[in-house]
Parts: sequence; C-alpha cells; structure tokens
Amino acid sequence: MRLIDGKAHAARLGEQVTARAAELRSQGVDPTLAVVVPTDDEATAWYVRSIARTAEKVGVTCRIVTLDRPTGYDVAGALAELGADPGVHGLICQTPLPGGVTLDQVGEHIPVAKDVDGANPASLGRLAAGLPAYAPATARAVLELLLAENVPLEGVAATVVGRSTVVGKPAALLLLAQNATVTVAHSRTRDLAAVCRQADVLVAAVGRAHLIGADHIKPGAVVIDVGTNPTPDGGLTGDVDPAVTTAGALTPVPGGVGPVTTMLLLAQTLDAAT
Amino acid sequence: MRLIDGKAHAARLGEQVTARAAELRSQGVDPTLAVVVPTDDEATAWYVRSIARTAEKVGVTCRIVTLDRPTGYDVAGALAELGADPGVHGLICQTPLPGGVTLDQVGEHIPVAKDVDGANPASLGRLAAGLPAYAPATARAVLELLLAENVPLEGVAATVVGRSTVVGKPAALLLLAQNATVTVAHSRTRDLAAVCRQADVLVAAVGRAHLIGADHIKPGAVVIDVGTNPTPDGGLTGDVDPAVTTAGALTPVPGGVGPVTTMLLLAQTLDAAT
Repeated sequence: MRLIDGKAHAARLGEQVTARAAELRSQGVDPTLAVVVPTDDEATAWYVRSIARTAEKVGVTCRIVTLDRPTGYDVAGALAELGADPGVHGLICQTPLPGGVTLDQVGEHIPVAKDVDGANPASLGRLAAGLPAYAPATARAVLELLLAENVPLEGVAATVVGRSTVVGKPAALLLLAQNATVTVAHSRTRDLAAVCRQADVLVAAVGRAHLIGADHIKPGAVVIDVGTNPTPDGGLTGDVDPAVTTAGALTPVPGGVGPVTTMLLLAQTLDAAT
Repeated sequence: MRLIDGKAHAARLGEQVTARAAELRSQGVDPTLAVVVPTDDEATAWYVRSIARTAEKVGVTCRIVTLDRPTGYDVAGALAELGADPGVHGLICQTPLPGGVTLDQVGEHIPVAKDVDGANPASLGRLAAGLPAYAPATARAVLELLLAENVPLEGVAATVVGRSTVVGKPAALLLLAQNATVTVAHSRTRDLAAVCRQADVLVAAVGRAHLIGADHIKPGAVVIDVGTNPTPDGGLTGDVDPAVTTAGALTPVPGGVGPVTTMLLLAQTLDAAT
C-alpha cells in the first residue's frame, strides 16, 4: 500500500503559489487573506498560526482579526466590513462560533468573490450549478490529491463518508463534476462497511477516529482521509484505522490532506486577488 | 406492482392549497406567482397555461410576463423588477432561454425569498447547508410522493439517475436530508443497471425515454419517474420503460410527478406569501 505524501504535494503547490504571489506583488497587488477569529479556542489558535506561517513563507499577507467574546452579529459585522475592504482578497472565518450561530449563517456575509474557503452557502450552490465559485479548501484538497496522483475518476464509484457542508457535500459535488458515480454515506447508513467496500475511491470525512477499517475498503481502493481527530497526546489521527494495509493508496494523518488544504486556501486567495 | 397516483396526491395537496389561499385572501393578501416567459416555444406555452389553470382553480393569482425575443439582460431585468415588486410573492422563469444563457445565470436575479422553483444557485446552496430555502418544485415533488406513500428513507439506498441543477442534485440533497444513503448516477456511470439495481428507492431524472428497464430495478424497489420525454403523437413518456412490472411501486408518466410539481409550485408561492 502506497502512502500519499501530502507534504510533497503541498510543497509543489507552494512553489506555484510563491511564484504567483511574487508576480502579483510586482504588479503592485498585495495579496491578502483576512482571517476572522471569533474564539480563544487553543486548537483554532494553533491552526491560525499555521496558516499565518505558511502565508508568510509563500508571500501572501495574512491579516488576523481576533474578536473578543463576540456575538453572532459582531462576527457578521466583521465579515461584512472586511468583505467591503478592497485591500482584502480572501476572507475566512474560524470556528467555533458564539453559541447557536452556524458557519453557514455568518458565511452569508462573506462576498462570494472573496469566499476562498467556500463558507457562503451561495458558493456551494454555485459550485453545484457549475458556476465559478470557491470550494471549501478541504474539499478542494481531496480533489487535488486525487488528480495529482492520477487517480481515474471518470465513471468510477466514489463514496464520501460524511455529509457536512464544509467537506462531505462539496467533496461529493467536486467528484460528481469529474464524472464519478458518487455515493454519500453517513451515520445513518445501513451496513456502512458494505457500502464503502464498493468504492474505488473512498473519502472519509466523518470525524470519528479509526471508524474506517479494513472491512470498509475494497482491496486496491484509493482512500483519502480527511479526519483530524485529536489524540490524548495532543496529536492528530484520521478517520481511517492506521492498521489498514489493503488500500491501493492512503493519505496519512497528519501529513495528507492538511498541508494541501492550507496551501489551496492561499492559492484561492491569489485567484481572488487576480 | 403498484402505480402511484400523482393526480390523487395533487388533488389532496390542492385542497390544502385552496384553503390556505382563501385564508390569505381573507387577510387581504393576494397570493401571486409571476411567471417570466422568455420564449415562444409551444411546449413552454402549454406548461404555462397548465400552471395558470391550476393556479386559478386553487385561488392563486398567476401573472404571466411574456418577453418578445429578449436578451439575457432583458430576462435578468424582468426578474429583478418582479423580484422588487411587493405584489409578487413567487417568481419563476421558464426555459428555453436566449442563446448561451443558463437558468442558473438568470436565476441569480430571483430573490431567494421569492425563488419558489429554486432557480437561484443560492437557494440550492442554502438547501445543501440546511438553511431555509425553496427546492425546485420537481425535486420537492419527488420527496413529497415518497413521504406521502410512507416509503422508508432513513438509512436506505436511494439512487438518483441524472445530475441536473433543477432535479438530480436537489433531489439528492432532499433525500440526504431524510437520512438516505444517496448515490448520484449519470451518463458516465459504469454499468448503470448494476448501480441502479442496488437502490431501494430509484429516481429517474435523466431525460431519455425508457432508459431505465427491468434490469435496472431491484425487485420491490420504489421508482419515481421524473422523465417527461415527448412522444411522436404529441404526448409524454417517462425515463422508465412502461413494460417494467418488477418494481414495488412506480409513478406513471403522465400522471405521476407532474401534477404534484405544479401544485407544490403553488404551495411554495403561498409559503412565500405568508
């Protein structure tokens, strides 16, 4: 079984992003990603620092806007303000959000043209309709890895486990646009293992550590693990059991989808700045 | 094999719609559906007359706005104008559209709150995100028939053949929201018959007469036929071969999804007027 090296793919994308950012700067454009942080959650802070570090490395300006115990209205207001700022090209909002507010709700305040992490439901709808729109970077990373690894998608059975707005559904739409026959499975699916075992391409985006085992995987299938489940020792582990050896190829966690996601977020910021 | 009587379901819905329309009128509201007709296509004219007749029967005002050889801008302008008119509660646009223009493009000019046939990609995105939105009436009719016939959907395998923005994709999203395990198949699907044969619920929305035969249907499956393919004698026929007898239940064409669709369009107009 081959491990797909997400870091290597991210490095390759990083070279392109660096060159494009330099080109934009030479034209007088300062490509800028604004990150609204409505929480003091430690995992979020860690992820935002990681985006900022990568952005600095490739020459994208990262403007972090931390809100102190905001209401949903405060978050929407900050997004609307940054959305109207011509110096901001890409705009994303971190979670968790204040009580009861969903990312879809505040996402509506991110202009579609700056919605580089596909948080506005209008972006998802445009994606479904085949109109220009940014997909959530994680979903885009799933497709990027499959395409970069030359995995055939046309006509094949692709199953996405998980139906979230940020990963499962957009990943399914992107696979459908590649002419895969797409199945969306989830917690209510009967005999999940049997459903998954039919897939040539399996995307695990369910958020439960090691839910997907050998009995879920058709021998030789390509498996993309989107899970980022915290481990007791402060690390991350995937939705796929690391003991799996029968897949044709598998993305590790960490070092698979994650680094590609961050780089695509920056690549989409450049698209928005161009 | 049981035939599902779409006319009977439409009649039942029609009673509810009639009562609700009368209630709105008693409150001084004139529930109004505006229909933009950008074509002199005969099939379109026939369908618009059928909507107008049904609307009159149930007490919904139907305002037909015919455009004479319009450009895409003219269509968008008419939709924007009617969208801003407080006397219009529901707003739909017929096809075909002027050369090169897609329904998704002009649909963006229909306010989401009046988009009773789910033509605005933002409505589809909101539907995907679980936010309030109108689904295309045809997709909604698929779900209505399944629910009214008490077809179990939770955890079952539901396959939609066809991935259009107006039927296939929204029907898949509605089935997913009912906790079905949803597969979207299409023209590029390998071994379509085998994929379809796994479905407990099969939705045919592909627009090819009689493409779905007995070898596509699991014995006992519930089959919803969304096809409306013209016949040489001026009638309509479905995507499912009428010779099929092995389904548990099947919607006929005509007399299945069609009448329910029209009634749900009017029901959604009342929702928008309420």
